[in-house]
Amino acid sequence: MSPPSIARRRSRVRRNSQNQPARSAGWSSLRSSLRGLQATEQPRAARVPIIIFAGDHGIVAQGVSAYPQGVTIAMMANFASGGAAISVLARELGSNLEVVDAGTLAQEAIAGVVTDKPRQGTRDFSVEVALTPTELAFAFEAGQRAVARAAAGRPDLLIFGEMGIGNTTTSAAVAASLLGISAEEIAGSGTGVDAAGRAHKARVIDAAIARHGVAGASPEKILCAVGGLEIAAICGAIIAAAQARIPVLIDGFIVSVAALAAVRLNASCQPFLLPSHQSAEHGHRLVLRALNVQPLISLDLRLGEGSGAAIALPLVRLACSLHNGMATFAQANVPDRPA
Amino acid sequence: MSPPSIARRRSRVRRNSQNQPARSAGWSSLRSSLRGLQATEQPRAARVPIIIFAGDHGIVAQGVSAYPQGVTIAMMANFASGGAAISVLARELGSNLEVVDAGTLAQEAIAGVVTDKPRQGTRDFSVEVALTPTELAFAFEAGQRAVARAAAGRPDLLIFGEMGIGNTTTSAAVAASLLGISAEEIAGSGTGVDAAGRAHKARVIDAAIARHGVAGASPEKILCAVGGLEIAAICGAIIAAAQARIPVLIDGFIVSVAALAAVRLNASCQPFLLPSHQSAEHGHRLVLRALNVQPLISLDLRLGEGSGAAIALPLVRLACSLHNGMATFAQANVPDRPA
Repeated sequence: MSPPSIARRRSRVRRNSQNQPARSAGWSSLRSSLRGLQATEQPRAARVPIIIFAGDHGIVAQGVSAYPQGVTIAMMANFASGGAAISVLARELGSNLEVVDAGTLAQEAIAGVVTDKPRQGTRDFSVEVALTPTELAFAFEAGQRAVARAAAGRPDLLIFGEMGIGNTTTSAAVAASLLGISAEEIAGSGTGVDAAGRAHKARVIDAAIARHGVAGASPEKILCAVGGLEIAAICGAIIAAAQARIPVLIDGFIVSVAALAAVRLNASCQPFLLPSHQSAEHGHRLVLRALNVQPLISLDLRLGEGSGAAIALPLVRLACSLHNGMATFAQANVPDRPA
Repeated sequence: MSPPSIARRRSRVRRNSQNQPARSAGWSSLRSSLRGLQATEQPRAARVPIIIFAGDHGIVAQGVSAYPQGVTIAMMANFASGGAAISVLARELGSNLEVVDAGTLAQEAIAGVVTDKPRQGTRDFSVEVALTPTELAFAFEAGQRAVARAAAGRPDLLIFGEMGIGNTTTSAAVAASLLGISAEEIAGSGTGVDAAGRAHKARVIDAAIARHGVAGASPEKILCAVGGLEIAAICGAIIAAAQARIPVLIDGFIVSVAALAAVRLNASCQPFLLPSHQSAEHGHRLVLRALNVQPLISLDLRLGEGSGAAIALPLVRLACSLHNGMATFAQANVPDRPA
């Protein structure tokens, strides 16, 4: 029996005699997963670096976003300078925050940002493929390089976040293609488009999926046709994390879509994906279901940036503390349920 | 305009220009409430003592619980000696934990437990009233005394927890009476009864409500007829906290029922009730709806002890940090949405 499965078995025995009714399935399964993945009876979520990947999206030319494209670069700089939500959360959580420009339109290096991109933004996938296979491979490797940098600090978990005006459209296109469903079923209102905007977004996506013929195609073909550089980088990062046996706390819709692509590329990633929150974005529930993870929290967040996973981290930490710190019924002299 | 409403207005202006899409209603409304209640633009959730009230229930004689009655006292001692889930959570959160015996069967003082009770356990409400009006008043005052002790430390928020074998039955009886619905709609499986046990529990409750004629009666009459000492103490504590203008982070089913009784006794408590989690207990959703609070998290917990509120506390803290620590769009030079 491999060490992880031994640890998981041992831990199961231990949990059943802890002085709580064994009933908190979502949370307990998280603890159980962590123990198994970390191959220990004392799971940890202390060192949890956050890596944000940013990218721009040619599809924005089709009017799918409520915010101007320049927000991607400005927010990327804001992450690095400490003024964004995720910057505040990272400080509070004691997490190192790395910001990777995986494909924004920025023409110059930005202080505090790692530039690692094959091109500036994707092509407009309503008229041509977003990425060539070479560009896609570069983005995957950018994700792998980021994980290699983080792995040097021996993290207990990793959080990946994203920033990219237009990336809910790209993510919905990737998810609809991977799941073989129509965009209408999955496209949401992103960061602030209205009902008409959402309908427009769904039409643009469905037309692109038909144009490129990628419904149900391979993940590589889908990511080239309608993908994004930050999404591909996160996909590569997830695979690299799983290969390094580091669990990943999955953020919102966009990161979940990248995770779904990663699992379709390499099914052995799946056990390393830990749930965090379910966002307000329309299709997130569908993607989480396809990933077979049950969110810990359902906040009506649609902030991106890794913030949903960051907000869930204290719950994971408390789950670890509870597991590691609680007396068993026997130690506490509490009468157990009668036979 | 009163200071709280001025602060709330000012904060609303500030939030709208923060560099996040203003979309996280549940969480945002929590932050907004906290700012208003604390009458400050810098809401805090740093000092959050936890007070657990324990009581025993005569109705346990009717076989409504899966655990023996002795568990109440043993767990109360376990809270105080640091081995329970809430003890671990309190340590992790830096919260002071006070344990109040508001009416257990314990005949002697327990180390680390404040004894403040009018009697040992309630009477079996299937055959007689659970409490006299004098006993009920004593329990209310025990809750008020506990808040007075905690208020000396100038808490930002308060968390109340409970322990009492049989108290999901008592709470379901109180809630069904307050809401004028049948026990079948609200009684859950508590800490581990099966479907047949749940049906039995509902029959016992409905018979008692009919016997005492308390469907839709006054909260005082309901609490005397079918209430519990720890539930009455929490009810008194919530009213005392609101009078001291200290918001309360509401725990699971039992505390929520006590909160509902408090609001029915004194509607001005309502704004001081902040949501935490929605538990796995059947009727919790109904009670939260009646309280008009939207839970932050839905974990499949049914642990009691204040643990749900404790687990939600880091989210409240992060919400405060985000509010207090984020740059605005203007400060961060992020382009805002075009006009």
